[in-house]
Amino acid sequence: MTKFHSDNAAPVHPNVWEAMRKADEADNPYDGDALSSELDGRFSDLFGRECAAMWVATGTAANCLALATMCQPHGAVVCHEESHIEVDEGGAPGFYLHGAKLMLAAGDGAKLTPDGIASLIDPIRDDVHQVQPHAIAITQASEYGLTYTPEELAALSNFAKARGLGLHMDGARFANAAAGAGGSAKEAAHGVDSLAFGFIKNGAMSAEAVVLFDPEQAAMVKYRRKRAGHLQCKGRYLAAQILAMLDGELWLANARHANAAAQDIAGACGNRLMHAVEANELFVRLSPVERDTLRAQGFEFYDWGADAARFVTAWNTRAEDARALAKAISSL
Amino acid sequence: MTKFHSDNAAPVHPNVWEAMRKADEADNPYDGDALSSELDGRFSDLFGRECAAMWVATGTAANCLALATMCQPHGAVVCHEESHIEVDEGGAPGFYLHGAKLMLAAGDGAKLTPDGIASLIDPIRDDVHQVQPHAIAITQASEYGLTYTPEELAALSNFAKARGLGLHMDGARFANAAAGAGGSAKEAAHGVDSLAFGFIKNGAMSAEAVVLFDPEQAAMVKYRRKRAGHLQCKGRYLAAQILAMLDGELWLANARHANAAAQDIAGACGNRLMHAVEANELFVRLSPVERDTLRAQGFEFYDWGADAARFVTAWNTRAEDARALAKAISSL
Amino acid sequence: MTKFHSDNAAPVHPNVWEAMRKADEADNPYDGDALSSELDGRFSDLFGRECAAMWVATGTAANCLALATMCQPHGAVVCHEESHIEVDEGGAPGFYLHGAKLMLAAGDGAKLTPDGIASLIDPIRDDVHQVQPHAIAITQASEYGLTYTPEELAALSNFAKARGLGLHMDGARFANAAAGAGGSAKEAAHGVDSLAFGFIKNGAMSAEAVVLFDPEQAAMVKYRRKRAGHLQCKGRYLAAQILAMLDGELWLANARHANAAAQDIAGACGNRLMHAVEANELFVRLSPVERDTLRAQGFEFYDWGADAARFVTAWNTRAEDARALAKAISSL
Amino acid sequence: MTKFHSDNAAPVHPNVWEAMRKADEADNPYDGDALSSELDGRFSDLFGRECAAMWVATGTAANCLALATMCQPHGAVVCHEESHIEVDEGGAPGFYLHGAKLMLAAGDGAKLTPDGIASLIDPIRDDVHQVQPHAIAITQASEYGLTYTPEELAALSNFAKARGLGLHMDGARFANAAAGAGGSAKEAAHGVDSLAFGFIKNGAMSAEAVVLFDPEQAAMVKYRRKRAGHLQCKGRYLAAQILAMLDGELWLANARHANAAAQDIAGACGNRLMHAVEANELFVRLSPVERDTLRAQGFEFYDWGADAARFVTAWNTRAEDARALAKAISSL
Repeated sequence: MTKFHSDNAAPVHPNVWEAMRKADEADNPYDGDALSSELDGRFSDLFGRECAAMWVATGTAANCLALATMCQPHGAVVCHEESHIEVDEGGAPGFYLHGAKLMLAAGDGAKLTPDGIASLIDPIRDDVHQVQPHAIAITQASEYGLTYTPEELAALSNFAKARGLGLHMDGARFANAAAGAGGSAKEAAHGVDSLAFGFIKNGAMSAEAVVLFDPEQAAMVKYRRKRAGHLQCKGRYLAAQILAMLDGELWLANARHANAAAQDIAGACGNRLMHAVEANELFVRLSPVERDTLRAQGFEFYDWGADAARFVTAWNTRAEDARALAKAISSL
Repeated sequence: MTKFHSDNAAPVHPNVWEAMRKADEADNPYDGDALSSELDGRFSDLFGRECAAMWVATGTAANCLALATMCQPHGAVVCHEESHIEVDEGGAPGFYLHGAKLMLAAGDGAKLTPDGIASLIDPIRDDVHQVQPHAIAITQASEYGLTYTPEELAALSNFAKARGLGLHMDGARFANAAAGAGGSAKEAAHGVDSLAFGFIKNGAMSAEAVVLFDPEQAAMVKYRRKRAGHLQCKGRYLAAQILAMLDGELWLANARHANAAAQDIAGACGNRLMHAVEANELFVRLSPVERDTLRAQGFEFYDWGADAARFVTAWNTRAEDARALAKAISSL
Repeated sequence: MTKFHSDNAAPVHPNVWEAMRKADEADNPYDGDALSSELDGRFSDLFGRECAAMWVATGTAANCLALATMCQPHGAVVCHEESHIEVDEGGAPGFYLHGAKLMLAAGDGAKLTPDGIASLIDPIRDDVHQVQPHAIAITQASEYGLTYTPEELAALSNFAKARGLGLHMDGARFANAAAGAGGSAKEAAHGVDSLAFGFIKNGAMSAEAVVLFDPEQAAMVKYRRKRAGHLQCKGRYLAAQILAMLDGELWLANARHANAAAQDIAGACGNRLMHAVEANELFVRLSPVERDTLRAQGFEFYDWGADAARFVTAWNTRAEDARALAKAISSL
Repeated sequence: MTKFHSDNAAPVHPNVWEAMRKADEADNPYDGDALSSELDGRFSDLFGRECAAMWVATGTAANCLALATMCQPHGAVVCHEESHIEVDEGGAPGFYLHGAKLMLAAGDGAKLTPDGIASLIDPIRDDVHQVQPHAIAITQASEYGLTYTPEELAALSNFAKARGLGLHMDGARFANAAAGAGGSAKEAAHGVDSLAFGFIKNGAMSAEAVVLFDPEQAAMVKYRRKRAGHLQCKGRYLAAQILAMLDGELWLANARHANAAAQDIAGACGNRLMHAVEANELFVRLSPVERDTLRAQGFEFYDWGADAARFVTAWNTRAEDARALAKAISSL
């Protein structure tokens, strides 16, 4: 069986294991260790602007802690109607934001645009009966595997500033997005106020980074992280994972590998593709019979509605498996 | 330097590392893997009564998720005024319980008694102006390293039932408490409705267990765990840690080791001891000069107020280091 | 100027004033007075089934306190996408329900049906990643002035029971709905678990009733009412308002008056009507020029989008003013 | 029977009734009416500094809405251990502040001092494990009927500023405090950032004022007021109450009347008094037998512990009743 279900259950990369084992030696609890202390500087270098960075164990926590810096309990976060924070996080934003709303915007490929957001929020009356937007959350790569260009991000960032809204990026697959667009973390996070930088799907075990481009918000996030039960006492093992992923740009190499596998498969899909393949996800029109055929050959994946399937590649997807899937799709 | 600061930054036990590495092979995400599925049965066996058990990354989350099953947002949890949930969890109960209060009871050695609780809650008028208690939280071992006997637990459990209150046990050092009292997990958790069973201080890396002795509450906790951002997608690595700790009673062996080291030190402390040493913590009267003397010999520990110090042993405390500390204290 | 903006700013009915003045004489604080104590019995009589009833100052609070009895913080309330709790209550459900979601269903005339709800909730996977519905909220009369028949309510109630969901009714204009459908409060609230029974739009000053058809929930609502700052110390003045509205069926007489005025106007609207007029609201297709014409004659009302207007009658709408408006519309 | 239970159930003052009746004529909903619009200016004049002022129906809501402007959900409000917000508001601060804590300081006569607060908060470590104070709440007059002088308020205000804390005043009996200290509202609220100005105990029916001396916070409070279900649609009746109380300084005259009655009684109490009588409350040492004697003569009041009683006078306490009580106490 070769698995294309998701990248979220892939094994841990050997470099990450090694870094974690080495962290046995350190012994300051919480985030008082030397590894955790490196994060601010390492991410500031990576993004070319000063930022604060903290580990947490899940993307859900990373997104919600960042959003809490920009959305009051009586406000709302504008997000795509198919975004992960709306659809798949079990109501976590409502919990972390103390009852703030998610406002659902439409947009092709699960991407938001200034126009799409404006058409949602412009009709909101400026009175207390209606919840007002405080922030925007976008996903890079989007829930359909599409990426935002620096130009698109600049437009969103300018729009957000003009409206007095914060701009957060859910980067569960940020590495794949950056890899798909030339490899610049800086460009892939252009103009955002905060980023949940995902490492778990890309080779780590249990560490994502909350990156705040307004470092003054770091204190609040640290208090909230503790309050949410996310300050692990052996935090050095999380810091070690992230540092291992940053070292030698392992995050980028792993993402490029996954994206390349996705491209191999995409080449066989032709106009079966529902969306461009810009990262490591493929949404492919396949009839039930066709899906049965593929599954009979040992390929595992999720259905996507009645007439399609989703395939996800990962840092450990073997090239031969990707080619085999491509061939199988071509042969349908 | 030999460290007696805390057990919360000790390295990960080799068996735990081995089990985690093996978990690379599995690949169902979240808690859909075979390891996570074992937990209910393993803890039911251990405690001799049916229970549901789930991993989370911190004791704070474990405590709060369990408490949410027994305390409504408009209620209160009775706890000791020096308990960890009151003093050291950054307000997490207020977050997870949506604004419920902690009601602070007194008690020797940070232990609660039915009488102590009654004297706190009996004066509360049964009217809507006053927050009503919904639950009791105790700590095993207590914040001063004392343990509850099965008889004490039975009295608390009966009291709780008579008052319609839930009874939760914070077991950050549950293993040390059980080890200190004969080694029975069943007896050490006698009569409680839920337990946060700590493994991290005792050799794990990032996994504690929420144990619910009313398994019908498991669904609620699972939804709340996700909502709190604590459902890790590679949860198998947490389950693996816990299972490694349960296998061959490693949890008990590690705790016995730490407790034995504490006893070695205790033997040298005489009436310097502020509390009986029933687990792996020592609170020792030491003047500033005496503490300086010990530190000059390379021993590390926390001050405890102006005239005392706290020493904590761990699963990896070397016997010779404990003996050396004992000798140094004797020589003061 | 004759006003058809809304019924929410109408003056207080003379009987209500009189009852309030008489309440000066009583003097037990909060809800310990004789008037407040009457509510349970009076509403139980009115609805022909045992219920608990409490005053609060706003419909928003009434809705939210009732919903909190049936929706946990990690759950959701299904409501119409144009419902007041979604659109016009400033995020109050998110506050009172501690972050629970509103799930937005479609339906003609802002009414919900079992099929409409099923099509919304059936695709929700039964897993912790997705917020699960806990309750349904409907509005009687609906946001477009339509009423639910007892048969429609029975279908919704049966559906809710089958799915394990609570069923709440927002009755800001419950009196108008009941008046429009034969005058039976019992039928107009058929099968619901709770009702926010509105009196303010219908002649009271500041008192709505939360009616719980499961009286065991009353204690929780009373604690939550206090916690929300809604337990007024001179509550007798609110009870007096409600009792004055119930006495001699003033609530029904006032609503019938308003509905009759609406019917007078409706008779002139023909196929300009966007919805049937079943209570005291009219949604009328009118061009901008036509609206200008009406306003030039002194009629006040809200625009409803680009090509329509909303007219609301109230307990104090003068028959001649309604006829004058009808005539003016006929003459367009 | 002459009642000295509390001032919280006194009837409504005739001027207030008259003003409310006149408000029938206005008809803009919510706080869009002319009366509500007057509040900012009227209170700015009264306090001699610019402020924003809004009506709400209870002191609980007033306190909590104000505190939400100065305390984040992860912070704490320092208050007296016997303060109303801690003891008698059903956990409302936990609800409105989304789980923030109350930190309980001691102080004679339920008053706080900089030293008392410092001794509570100085030991709090500046780390994320411990909840940090964000605000201070004091009560004017205190729960024991004592008042803060302008000098005491200046000291608290300076302390708060130095520590970066907000300073809120619960003024449920602010009028009595001001009346007891020379009649200056300005002095009685010296240096505070917000005030819950109580009118209900002093002759109004259902209106207190939230006064914000940083008017920029008004928008947040307005959104939160709506979100809490406290934006009444016929708000003009609340504004009318407050304006009637301000007109001709009725608030001060009523408070002076109540205070004078309290002084009449105090004169008979000698060293039975547990606290100075600076407003309209008396705490008097009385044995059970003595209390029985008084009650047998028709005086009603609350026990205050085993050997004392609380007497409260109100705007409508008759001078002869106060004298009769004084005489009865003298005769014990």
